[in-house]
Formats: sequence, structure tokens, C-alpha cells
Amino acid sequence: MERITATYLVETCYDLKEAAHVLAGEQSSGTFVSVPGESDELKARFAARVEQIEELESVSQPSLPGDFGSNMTFKRAKITVSWSEENFGTNVPALVSTLQGNLYELKQFTGLKLDDFTLPKSFTDKFKGPRFGIKGTKELASVEADRPMIGTIIKPSVGLTPEYTADLVKVLAEAGIDFVKDDELMTSTANSPFEKRVEMIQKVINTHQDKTGKKVMYAYNISGDIDQMQSQYEWIVKHGGSCAMISINSVGWAATKKISEMGELSIHGHRNGYGMLNRHPLLGINFPAYSKIWRLAGVDQLHVNGIENKFWESDDSVVRSINSCLKPFIKEQGILPVVSSGQWGGQAFETYKRTQTTDLLYMAGGGIMAHPSGPAGGVRALKQAWKGAVDGKTLQETAKDYKEFGESVLKFGSK
Amino acid sequence: MERITATYLVETCYDLKEAAHVLAGEQSSGTFVSVPGESDELKARFAARVEQIEELESVSQPSLPGDFGSNMTFKRAKITVSWSEENFGTNVPALVSTLQGNLYELKQFTGLKLDDFTLPKSFTDKFKGPRFGIKGTKELASVEADRPMIGTIIKPSVGLTPEYTADLVKVLAEAGIDFVKDDELMTSTANSPFEKRVEMIQKVINTHQDKTGKKVMYAYNISGDIDQMQSQYEWIVKHGGSCAMISINSVGWAATKKISEMGELSIHGHRNGYGMLNRHPLLGINFPAYSKIWRLAGVDQLHVNGIENKFWESDDSVVRSINSCLKPFIKEQGILPVVSSGQWGGQAFETYKRTQTTDLLYMAGGGIMAHPSGPAGGVRALKQAWKGAVDGKTLQETAKDYKEFGESVLKFGSK
Repeated sequence: MERITATYLVETCYDLKEAAHVLAGEQSSGTFVSVPGESDELKARFAARVEQIEELESVSQPSLPGDFGSNMTFKRAKITVSWSEENFGTNVPALVSTLQGNLYELKQFTGLKLDDFTLPKSFTDKFKGPRFGIKGTKELASVEADRPMIGTIIKPSVGLTPEYTADLVKVLAEAGIDFVKDDELMTSTANSPFEKRVEMIQKVINTHQDKTGKKVMYAYNISGDIDQMQSQYEWIVKHGGSCAMISINSVGWAATKKISEMGELSIHGHRNGYGMLNRHPLLGINFPAYSKIWRLAGVDQLHVNGIENKFWESDDSVVRSINSCLKPFIKEQGILPVVSSGQWGGQAFETYKRTQTTDLLYMAGGGIMAHPSGPAGGVRALKQAWKGAVDGKTLQETAKDYKEFGESVLKFGSK
Repeated sequence: MERITATYLVETCYDLKEAAHVLAGEQSSGTFVSVPGESDELKARFAARVEQIEELESVSQPSLPGDFGSNMTFKRAKITVSWSEENFGTNVPALVSTLQGNLYELKQFTGLKLDDFTLPKSFTDKFKGPRFGIKGTKELASVEADRPMIGTIIKPSVGLTPEYTADLVKVLAEAGIDFVKDDELMTSTANSPFEKRVEMIQKVINTHQDKTGKKVMYAYNISGDIDQMQSQYEWIVKHGGSCAMISINSVGWAATKKISEMGELSIHGHRNGYGMLNRHPLLGINFPAYSKIWRLAGVDQLHVNGIENKFWESDDSVVRSINSCLKPFIKEQGILPVVSSGQWGGQAFETYKRTQTTDLLYMAGGGIMAHPSGPAGGVRALKQAWKGAVDGKTLQETAKDYKEFGESVLKFGSK
């Protein structure tokens, strides 16, 4: 039987080996006394196994509340544990409950974060994975391979009417945008019913496509009950749309998979709420593990924050997330990293330098809408920034060579 | 329009009022520059509103990484924010993305935890809520109102055959148990296919019911893909079962709601993974908010850990969780708190003293299976403990009055 491995970052004041075995034990037969029926043979077959312990630094303050008596040395380590495939078949919720589950409750640990996991090919082969992935999604929007998809978000998030939103989309489509999305706070509201919004926006997009051949991708936020998501999905398909957006943490894994498997739209995975799972350096889950769970659900696009973002996350962490998405996982496919948060084009240079990829959906909000030459100028500026970055130019050189990007630098460059 | 309110525990080195407005702004129209279309009228109608700021203590070390320059005073506060119902209709994933969403990413906060929220009756009235709740679930298992349901977990979690598991259930049923559950790590495995397990266990339970009139409730773990959960649910119904268990964090909200609404089984909500969301005192979500989200999905039973548990959680926190479950929320109903983790009966006294309720599902693992007089002794001991507690006796008095509980105290009381 093949094995599944998971790597954790942990902190403990206990003996590291002992703590690692508590971790493995909790995820195979944890209870506070030995019970009849736990034969050695069963244990050997189904028990989790500690594969590796790599000791890291020690600290004198615990990262999380826990049980540590007078011992005030907290050892950090990277621990790798494995389970037999037999334990879960290909049931992902069972896998998640095993990899995460009650582990975070163990008082032996004053820190525990799931960093990454590996699955045998026999496991991932049973999953459809993303229907469109990087290549398919870029093709849906007629975006050339040598540049990122350029996208923006409708703001304000709630309050606009379908008419106003459709007018905005018209302006953006004419400005050359590839992708537009609902804000994640926007679903169906009193003054913007979902069906009406889709109708009006797709009319604009379809007309633009008839004229130019290019279909702008709009990510409609279908997050909600399953039945509602299914009917809204069908509504998008019926009106010629190409994408649906799901707030994956709020909707959950099983429903996201069900929707992804409908197979007609590229699925835009919005990770809002991720900070709760990730912000503490020694609690929760890191992006490589997180993204794999959602790739098993079939999302095509996944948010990764951005370089010099407006949030707390470091650039190193963002780069690691981008690379995670690009790395093949199911059927040798990557998924499209969605770069957003405070982006205006200035970050294209560092983003390209550190990732060497144009397989991105690069999103700017104010960076497009508030451009001095209007949204068309904003879109042009972003394309110019990426052209400059890919051509090996600096930000300054690009600002000199291209008018609209030059204007962006004057407006957004000082912040 | 009625408003939804949410209360957060926060920590910040910024001016508290300013930080509260960043929080509210992020959840209505967050972007880094003002954009056209944000009229004052729209803002007034759809913007989140800061309702209250209650300043708490200050600390000199930040709880989470963030942006604080040279300022090293971190103020803590309880902040209440409100939104108009208009922002989401009754879409719970949209509500969750609003209450939680990108808030945890804000670098202005070095701590942010959603503590609780309130919904107008017009909102909760649109939800079916739990089908069985406290009363219905206890009735399904013929449990008297004046004592908790007594339950146990099949251990080891994975490895046992359906035959062995059914034999164990027979022993437990004859011992007088009310409730038995799969371990959360157990779904359908190589040597215990789900269908076979249900067939064999329900045969034992149905036979026992024919003889005694009592139907032991078995919580089969159906966590998985939606289609699989639906067919496994039907399989349980077909074989006369009364309960299905879902690892709610792993399966997710929308799928859990879909399954709960099938309406024939009591839904056992297992919260494994909750520590990731809750263990840090200033990150994530507290139980009152967490449980309401799952009550909207329709779970009838929800794990709350236990007094003197084997995990890290404090007794105060467990008591707060129990009280949260008992408090009416949808259609004036409570849900059944599932008390577990290191329980053996000794904790009945403190649990009853602090909650004054018998509306509990009180679970013991080793406390039953490893009882000196066998499982039957273990079940009797638990019932005796609760009888003693409700009668106002002390642990010592109860141990003296009842043989099997006396044995429990000798075996488990010293740990």
C-alpha cells in the first residue's frame, strides 16, 4: 500500500520524539487508556508513522497556550508523518480530518501548522482536478501566453445596480480588460439580484465578443446554498458566461467540488478567511497544503495575495504560493494564481523577477479604476508594466517608455 | 432594514477608532484609493457601521505579526460592527465572508477574533434549523429528560472489521448505552466498507430494539463528497438508523446544510479541526459565533469538548460552549452539546454544577471500554455519576453509594 505523507511545523516543550508520536497516535487511535482490540497487527497496518524529525531553533516563550509546567524551553521542529492510503480510500474530507483534525487541540504542542502533504499518483488520478487550469482559463479569455490575464474587481462591493455594473463592464471591456469579478461580499442583494446582473453584464460581454472576437471573463459570485449555486451556475452558462466565483472557505469543500465538476465554467476560488487559517506562524495551514485541498475540489484559479500587498503577508510567502499553484499536482496541471491586493502595475517587476512566469491572473482595483486617464489608461498601464517586466526593463525605464504606465507611477508609485 | 451585528476581540497599535473604521470599511468597500461610484448615499445604505468600542487592557508585545513601526503599545478592545440585512439577503456563505473574510489579513490588527454575532428574527426564520435538536435527538434514543445521553466512540478508529464493530455495539447495547459513534478518522476503509458496516451494526441495533424497545443511536460517519454522503445517508435510513455524523470543517457549510435538510436523521456535527480556528486567544472565531454558523446549516448535535479534557481548552471555555448550544437561536430551539475528550464520569459533578443541565450527549471512550467490570460496568458507572451529580451528591458520596462508579474512581480518578 502506498503512503500519504504530511509535514508539520511544530513547537513543544516535550521531548520531540515523544511529541511526534503523540501526534501520530492521535490521528490513528487516540484515547487516554489502551483499549481492547488494538492488536499489534492492526497498529502496524493502520497507525500513522513518524517518518522524520528535523529539529529547528528553540525559544523561551510558547507560541500558543498549552501545558508546560516549569519547563520553559520550547523546541521547534519540522515533523513528517505518514499514513497508509488504506485509512481513507480517496475520501478528501477524511484525509483533511486526519491531516488536521484534533491535532491542533493537543496540549503537548504550543505550535502546530500543516505545511505540505504528498499524495500517491494512484490517489490524485481518481480526481478530475481543474477542468480548465492555467491554459484553459487563459484561452477562454483569449489571453496570449506571454502576458498575465489582467483583471479588476467591481467596487464598491455592494450597492451598485446591475445597470451601473454593466456600464462599468462595458467601459472595462472597451479598455481591453481580460477579466472582471464581483467582490466577494457581493452575491445577490436587494438592489442587484443575481439573475438580472448576469443578464445585463453578459449582454455587454457578448456584444463586445461579437464585435471583437474576445470574450471578457466575468467571475460571478455564486457562493451560497448548493441548490442556489447550481441554478446560478446554469444561469451563467445559459447567458454565455465563462466563470463562476466561489468563496471556498465559506462554502466548503464538498459543495465546491460538486460545483466544479459541473465542468462548463472556470472556477475562481476566492480564499477570503484564509488569514484565520494562516496568519499565525505556528498555527493552521500553509499555502502548499491549503491549495492542494482545493485543487482536489477542482478550482481553476486561486487567490495568492500579491507582492507589496496591502495586507500583512510577506513577499516571500506570496512567491511560495504562486510557485505552489504552478507546480503540477493532478494530471500534471497547474492552476492559475490570482494576484491581488493593492496591485497597480508597479509590482509587476518584482513579481516577474521572483517567479519568472506570466501564468497569472493579475488583478488591480483602484489601480485601474482610479488611473488618471481612466480605466482604459489603467488597463493599458498594467499591460505596459508587464511588457516592460518581461522585456527585462526596470520600472523607471518602463515608465519612461510608456505614457499610461508613467502616469500610474506618478499617481500610485509614491505610496 | 434590520441590522446584523458582530462582536470582535481585537488588538491594534493604531488609534482604536481608526482601526475599527478600517475593519468596517474592509467589509464594505475596501480598496486602496477612493473609486468613482462610491456615493454618500450608497455608503450610508450598505456600509458597515461601528456600533461600539469597549477598550480593554494594553500589552507591549503583539499577538500576531503585523505592521507597527516603533509603536509598541498594543491596545485590546471589543468592537461591535453592524451591517444592513440588505447586504446579503439570507445567504450564509456571504454572511460568513462578510463577518470573517479578509479581516484577518488586515495589518492594522495584531489580533482579531470573531466572538459572536446576532441575526434578526426575519433572517433566522428563513432557516429550517436543526430537525431534531435536543428534545428530538434524546427522544430518538429513548433517553429520559433527567439525565444526559450516554455515548461512546468505537476505538481504535481505523482497522476494525464490520463484524468486530457490530460485536462491540452488541456488547455496548446490552450494557445500556444510548449512543455510539464512528471515530472521525473512520469513513469507508479497505477492511470496513461503509455499507457493510451499517448493515451489520443496524442488525444488532434493530434486534436489540425489537427485544427492549430502545433504539441505540449510532452516528455513522458519512463525511465525503456530496453524492456519497447522500447515498450513505439513504443507506442509513433504509437500514433503520437514526443518525449521521459529519466532520463539519472538512466537509464544509453548504454540503452540511444540504445533508441536514434531508430531514430524516439527527445530524452529529463533529468539529475536528476547530483548534485551528480557535486555539489562539486573538485569532479566528469563538464558539458562540462558530456554533451559530453550523446551527444555520442544521446540525442537531455539536461537539464542545469537556470539563478537565485531555486537550488544551479551559473549563471556562467549555462551559461557555455548552451554554451557547442550549441557548435558543433558530425557532426557539437549542442543539445538543456533545461532551467528550478524556471523560469518565468523574467530570459529571463539575459539569452539572457549572451548567445545571442534563441536556447533553456525554461521551466516554476508554472510560467505558476500559472499565474494570467491562463496558456494561462503564455505562452503569456513567449513569450513576450523573444520578449522583443531579441528586446533589459529591463524587466521593457517589463512589460510596454505587459500585461501578466506585470502581471508575479507583481506576481513572487518580489521573
